[in-house]
Amino acid sequence: MRSIKQSDHRHLYLKISEMMEDQINKELLKIGDKLPSVRVMQKVHGVSVSTILKAYYHLESKGLIEARPQSGYYVRFTPKQFPAQPTKSSTDYKPGGDTAEEIIDEVYQNISDRDRIVFSLGIPSLQLIPVSKLNKAITEATRKLPFGGIGYENVQGNIHLRKQIAKWSLTWEGRLTPDEIVTTTGCMDALSLSLAAITEKGDTIAVESPCFFSILQLAESMGLKVIELPTDPNSGIDIGALQKTITAKKIKAIILMSNFSNPLGSYIPEDNKKEIVELIQFHNIPLIEDDIYGDLYFTKSRPKTCKSFDKSGLVILCSSFSKTLAPGYRVGWVAPGRYLDKVRRLKLYREVSSTTLQQEAIALFLENGRYEHHLRKLRNILHVSSMQYMRTISGFFPKDTRISHPQGGLYLWVECNNKTDTYRLFKRAIKDNISIAPGRMFTLKNQFHNCMRLCYGLPWNERIEEALISLGELVFQSNK
Amino acid sequence: MRSIKQSDHRHLYLKISEMMEDQINKELLKIGDKLPSVRVMQKVHGVSVSTILKAYYHLESKGLIEARPQSGYYVRFTPKQFPAQPTKSSTDYKPGGDTAEEIIDEVYQNISDRDRIVFSLGIPSLQLIPVSKLNKAITEATRKLPFGGIGYENVQGNIHLRKQIAKWSLTWEGRLTPDEIVTTTGCMDALSLSLAAITEKGDTIAVESPCFFSILQLAESMGLKVIELPTDPNSGIDIGALQKTITAKKIKAIILMSNFSNPLGSYIPEDNKKEIVELIQFHNIPLIEDDIYGDLYFTKSRPKTCKSFDKSGLVILCSSFSKTLAPGYRVGWVAPGRYLDKVRRLKLYREVSSTTLQQEAIALFLENGRYEHHLRKLRNILHVSSMQYMRTISGFFPKDTRISHPQGGLYLWVECNNKTDTYRLFKRAIKDNISIAPGRMFTLKNQFHNCMRLCYGLPWNERIEEALISLGELVFQSNK
Repeated sequence: MRSIKQSDHRHLYLKISEMMEDQINKELLKIGDKLPSVRVMQKVHGVSVSTILKAYYHLESKGLIEARPQSGYYVRFTPKQFPAQPTKSSTDYKPGGDTAEEIIDEVYQNISDRDRIVFSLGIPSLQLIPVSKLNKAITEATRKLPFGGIGYENVQGNIHLRKQIAKWSLTWEGRLTPDEIVTTTGCMDALSLSLAAITEKGDTIAVESPCFFSILQLAESMGLKVIELPTDPNSGIDIGALQKTITAKKIKAIILMSNFSNPLGSYIPEDNKKEIVELIQFHNIPLIEDDIYGDLYFTKSRPKTCKSFDKSGLVILCSSFSKTLAPGYRVGWVAPGRYLDKVRRLKLYREVSSTTLQQEAIALFLENGRYEHHLRKLRNILHVSSMQYMRTISGFFPKDTRISHPQGGLYLWVECNNKTDTYRLFKRAIKDNISIAPGRMFTLKNQFHNCMRLCYGLPWNERIEEALISLGELVFQSNK
Repeated sequence: MRSIKQSDHRHLYLKISEMMEDQINKELLKIGDKLPSVRVMQKVHGVSVSTILKAYYHLESKGLIEARPQSGYYVRFTPKQFPAQPTKSSTDYKPGGDTAEEIIDEVYQNISDRDRIVFSLGIPSLQLIPVSKLNKAITEATRKLPFGGIGYENVQGNIHLRKQIAKWSLTWEGRLTPDEIVTTTGCMDALSLSLAAITEKGDTIAVESPCFFSILQLAESMGLKVIELPTDPNSGIDIGALQKTITAKKIKAIILMSNFSNPLGSYIPEDNKKEIVELIQFHNIPLIEDDIYGDLYFTKSRPKTCKSFDKSGLVILCSSFSKTLAPGYRVGWVAPGRYLDKVRRLKLYREVSSTTLQQEAIALFLENGRYEHHLRKLRNILHVSSMQYMRTISGFFPKDTRISHPQGGLYLWVECNNKTDTYRLFKRAIKDNISIAPGRMFTLKNQFHNCMRLCYGLPWNERIEEALISLGELVFQSNK
């Protein structure tokens, strides 16, 4: 329980910087205004000079204020200037068009080219990951496990890890127990096993729109029919549309990313989560909830999941450590609710068990608080990065560009005007060694040609800023 | 190429012990006969005393001869005494009966109980694996890979590993190239991706009978119809029956374990392999070939695969390092032939990529010849172990017990008379902390109730001998 209390207990400098940010947002401090001096602030708040300096540095790192030599700090930018958010997706699109599969292939070709600015890959920069600590955890795991972890792990998963995940679930009021959890080869494996457990060829499922492309492609490869439902960049899936669909059609499963979705960055508010859970219980439809970005919140506390409100066992919660810690470790997990036996058996038949060593290493990393410590830093960097991305897009893209305002996760969803075709933009940008994810990837329909997903997992620096400005120029060019 | 030549070049003592074994087999040396003294043998063959001693130790370790104090070596046993082989499986079984799924669940419960003699698990004892060398390879991999291997690996797989697998394929005249190979999360993942790439719900596939249970259960979970074809314990699938089936019915895929199958231990002779490849080419049916046991041959050279003879791209070859090196590393691979793109995409959608670190570690292990060195030792131990198991079963089980005579792999298939129900035997034996795999697991039909699979991956010692003798007693009791 220690770790959870700590996460509520934020630093003093963060509280002060938040208060200032609030004043900037409310335009009590306007662009160009000088901020109170560090001395004045220090006396007013009764804190040390270094705390005030830290608060100012933090605001500066977000791009909100700037220091002028021998003068002090000035307001540089206010989030009020952020462009409007993308329009809510609809079911209004023309049939036909090219397929997503080829675009996906092209975008993920040579992704590891080191000279490239890769806005298209969905992970935090590996420079943000505590590599040597993870290496240490791997070595520790080879020592702790019998035979150095070369043996098969239990099919359901390493018990040490399952206990740690169960403990961690308290942060979102999940109250999972270790025997409810099955570990997997990353989150997509969790989704894939879950979907295979509850659907078969010819079934229809409902998803958000836009939707993470692997979910769409996986569903299509399984012969499933997919209904893409209107989704709001702020509040996620349109509950009215969901209700209408499950009343009118036989829906065998719903897949949602409830917290900071990929690619839209949407967050389903708590009340909506409750409503969704009631809805699926009433209609007896399983919900596959992908919470892989839930730990990357910029808000004050860890958001809950639909699973937090589920008593029926219909919610199948999937997650992993790929977006927060170590993508290459391939450690994910699923809490399949009433489908536990089916998912565990499918895992046995498909892959026997998951990699032994990495499960133990991540368990060790969670156990001694290293994960939480790392997450606190990571969230801060991502939040700052997202603000800088938004500020730069706001300044250097055409004025009618819309962007999402994510409260967590890794992605900005950028909606250009209709003159911009982002697949063409991709082909042009790649010549300048900039890679983006065209919107068409995130749908099976003929839509989102004017949208793109940008990952702000690359922490802010001049090179990134230049790349974003270049991208803005290319968008301008596409409008001519 | 160096490594392959070496494997043809067997030790002198092995050649001498083989010659003696041949004489024992042909009854030129009969049970009770005294062997020539070490001195005589040394002079006859013009080799050192230690070479002769090594040859005699080797024959002793196989249970063929025994040393009598102050007297010399005597013939103790001849493989001629081995019981008859199991009958070829047929399609003659009654419908109904209990399901395999529950038996599988029960057998694999608490499999890691340390006090148990586990004849039911299909891996070599971890005591036969060079654990510290593998740990070293893991550490080496964390140093060699960028960011210690925490990043996503290329979807198709680590290029270093794919090059090593391609090189290794020369041992069975495979001539694979790295770009034909996709790495996977173990061999079952390779099979599962392959099967998903070429079939859909309602399709019919043909398999050997008995067949590895995970293949059957996987197929059933995918809604496939499964035809189990008669299979000979020596020469594998009945080609006539296969031909008849694919002529009469629309078969979408065939799955075979061509070398030292699980559970039967059968080996498809080269000519049969060629015939099978011609057959599938004629009928244009993809063959999924599982060669996971191919490196564990007791014969003089590495057996070829069907893939060795395939020019059409219809053979999808699956394998892994789980049965020879490190089950818990979950490193497998597939050479999908003409289905390469489909398999690679399915892998991306289902699991993004395989664990980064272990792929590199195994590549390093292969590269410097450590794998080949390890295999030479492992094969020898398994061969000796198989002989001791067979000798003991021959001495302590009812006389009408039939057992397979595998030329490689990990399994004995034991066929008792019809009075023995091996699921009941399992329940009785588990009370004595002995676990076996009942025959009913290896079929979707109502058959093989009198059979069991025993893994001789547990190297021979007194405790194993006692357990096998106890098991024999329980079989006797089941006959009453």
